[in-house]
Amino acid sequence: MSTLSSPSPEFPSHTDTDPRSLGWMQGFPPPAERTLRFADGSHYEFPQRRWSFSHMRELLPTARVSRGDGPVCALPRADRDDLDTVPFTTLDSRASTWGEAFAANYTDGLVVLHRGNIVYEKYFGALQADLVHSAFSVTKSFVGTHAAMQVYDGSLDANAPVTHYVPELSDTAYGNATVRQVMDMTIGVRYSEAYADPSADIHAYARAGGMRARPSVYLGPQTFYDYLVTLKKEGEHGTGFTYKTVNSEVLAWIVKRVAGVRLADLTSSEIWSKLGCEYDALYQVDSVGTEAGGGGLNTTLRDLARFGEAMRCDGSFNGQQIVPAAVVADIRNGANRDHFATAGYATLPGWSYRNMWWVSHDAHPCFTARGIHGQAIWVDPVAEMVIARYASHPLAANAFMDPTSLPAYRALGEHLMRGG
Amino acid sequence: MSTLSSPSPEFPSHTDTDPRSLGWMQGFPPPAERTLRFADGSHYEFPQRRWSFSHMRELLPTARVSRGDGPVCALPRADRDDLDTVPFTTLDSRASTWGEAFAANYTDGLVVLHRGNIVYEKYFGALQADLVHSAFSVTKSFVGTHAAMQVYDGSLDANAPVTHYVPELSDTAYGNATVRQVMDMTIGVRYSEAYADPSADIHAYARAGGMRARPSVYLGPQTFYDYLVTLKKEGEHGTGFTYKTVNSEVLAWIVKRVAGVRLADLTSSEIWSKLGCEYDALYQVDSVGTEAGGGGLNTTLRDLARFGEAMRCDGSFNGQQIVPAAVVADIRNGANRDHFATAGYATLPGWSYRNMWWVSHDAHPCFTARGIHGQAIWVDPVAEMVIARYASHPLAANAFMDPTSLPAYRALGEHLMRGG
Repeated sequence: MSTLSSPSPEFPSHTDTDPRSLGWMQGFPPPAERTLRFADGSHYEFPQRRWSFSHMRELLPTARVSRGDGPVCALPRADRDDLDTVPFTTLDSRASTWGEAFAANYTDGLVVLHRGNIVYEKYFGALQADLVHSAFSVTKSFVGTHAAMQVYDGSLDANAPVTHYVPELSDTAYGNATVRQVMDMTIGVRYSEAYADPSADIHAYARAGGMRARPSVYLGPQTFYDYLVTLKKEGEHGTGFTYKTVNSEVLAWIVKRVAGVRLADLTSSEIWSKLGCEYDALYQVDSVGTEAGGGGLNTTLRDLARFGEAMRCDGSFNGQQIVPAAVVADIRNGANRDHFATAGYATLPGWSYRNMWWVSHDAHPCFTARGIHGQAIWVDPVAEMVIARYASHPLAANAFMDPTSLPAYRALGEHLMRGG
Repeated sequence: MSTLSSPSPEFPSHTDTDPRSLGWMQGFPPPAERTLRFADGSHYEFPQRRWSFSHMRELLPTARVSRGDGPVCALPRADRDDLDTVPFTTLDSRASTWGEAFAANYTDGLVVLHRGNIVYEKYFGALQADLVHSAFSVTKSFVGTHAAMQVYDGSLDANAPVTHYVPELSDTAYGNATVRQVMDMTIGVRYSEAYADPSADIHAYARAGGMRARPSVYLGPQTFYDYLVTLKKEGEHGTGFTYKTVNSEVLAWIVKRVAGVRLADLTSSEIWSKLGCEYDALYQVDSVGTEAGGGGLNTTLRDLARFGEAMRCDGSFNGQQIVPAAVVADIRNGANRDHFATAGYATLPGWSYRNMWWVSHDAHPCFTARGIHGQAIWVDPVAEMVIARYASHPLAANAFMDPTSLPAYRALGEHLMRGG
């Protein structure tokens, strides 16, 4: 697959899908053909989503993740003008540059920190520095970090059965699974994550959680919880990595049961308020206020970078230890690479998945949070670099962006190491 | 009507309806009988709404009213412990106190400023200092202020026909109305605001705007705009005051057409960001992102008090002239009191309604923004006092709270004047 200058030749280009020039949702009312609605799914079409991903709260109910009342932890600026020309070779052997990759991946915004300084910050289309954008499955890494922090402080036993915390799941695929198996996604559950397949379970999950429109006659589950209790076992637990969003939703349920507070408040108290964020974040919620732990977090880009920087700095940021260093080390060390290999990610050879983070096991070792359509936190400890990216790629799977993104990230890290 | 210690004997008391002790929406998931949903209308029942009014964004899509990036304009504290015992006599001749009135009106939070200092701040139930609460029709006073500011700066002609700005309304009740008639609600339109009547038009308006649940089969208007263009004339324009929320929605439409930006951004740029607010506010929005200009604003209580203080200080606050002094004077001077009298508000004799503010024409002269279920900004220029109140009264109309609220406000002002 080619994801270079025109990653998906069947789709119009980055520039041609600029939501500002296309005029989505401009005017009172917007013209009919430029109006996006949640109820008919038009907000999620391409290129319409280039507007929607920066305006999710206007389409759905949401819960606030408070930044608290503390001072902002400023990110020092050391902007550089040499980065757009940094060359790299795509995984399919084409010559490209950092600047070209911005467009190739339908990027909505990109922040690069080097040694904690902003060296690159760029927005496109509907996204602005003060707007929150959907992080999609980057959310999972927050939930996994929460769980790992609970394991570290002893309030959560990773070796305990899931049903110790959520007995409602006893008759489901999770009835004989451990918390650790959920945290590392080695769960055997009948559930398909194939976004391109309209009949895939991910869509039923999304409809249950109010993340996608429902048909006018809808008899399915009304909430995330109602959906999770329908999941049946398929295959074995603990023998292989299989990426399934429902695992993150189950983990969020466990985390809330342990913490005794809802996810939005936990993320605020444990992470967001400690980072010195500039803005509140939010979680999309279902019809009973349950945060979408599999993909509902929305943040500004600089605040997302703050979290990445904390993870780069062994959990320490803004003058305090926010995530225990042992938790970060556990993520960096990764999980069983043989288990990961069974999933067959061609662009991620030798990787693993730990605490809902993707771990490269390269020499640095880089680790990353990833969401569909191009959302990412990329942490390169050796290059002392953090990348936060929001995008609205026409295709869901990161496999379509990896051939450009991964070598671009690595090239930028090496460039910064040489001259930074 | 009596609204004293037990204003509505058929309803359980303030204390007995504390949403925290009732446990609404606590747990993962909450117990079925303690779960509130937008779709079935349970969030709006009493006493459920005592939780919901502080959690609207978790039930509905919303648009952010940014506080901007400026510093907070701190409200100096001069807390007093003598206010709860301030006595007053209700309009129906019972002895009461300021502290008793807090409970009598099912108050969720109350802030009193005297000479710009916080002398009283109290929260109850679900509301906290950092949570936004529905302001309901207090929203209208923001929209009216925006319109009056546009008239002042010349961008809006109050004497122009509504259709000059919104030609889509030509075949409606507004087809031969002026902007001024809309601003002062002297519009003859077939539309009933009687909340207690399930067939009243206010409910159809709310369903069209996504503010209330729709039946499973719903063939009505999908948006505020779609609803407004259905309104037919009844009676005459300009001859009497009739309080109808659709007028505010029409005025919001005009204001947006003039400003060229949506209401959330206008309120942010013209008011919220200048006040030095502590928190973002929000507007509830309909299915195409249109802010509910008739009742969709949600703010924290202290930030609402900041706006009240700016209005008390002739529009000047936080070191700048936010609302032109002439606009505040125009509001304070009020409108035609004979026009107002035709509406028959027993608790508001001699009042008028100007630029979507309620004007007392008393010696001070007090003016106020009012929303159903007890939302209020009360400005007493002579007592140098501003009251911001959020509540969740079992009944909608302020007529049920006025017999307690109005004399309580006046008594507090006089008390502060004597010893403040």
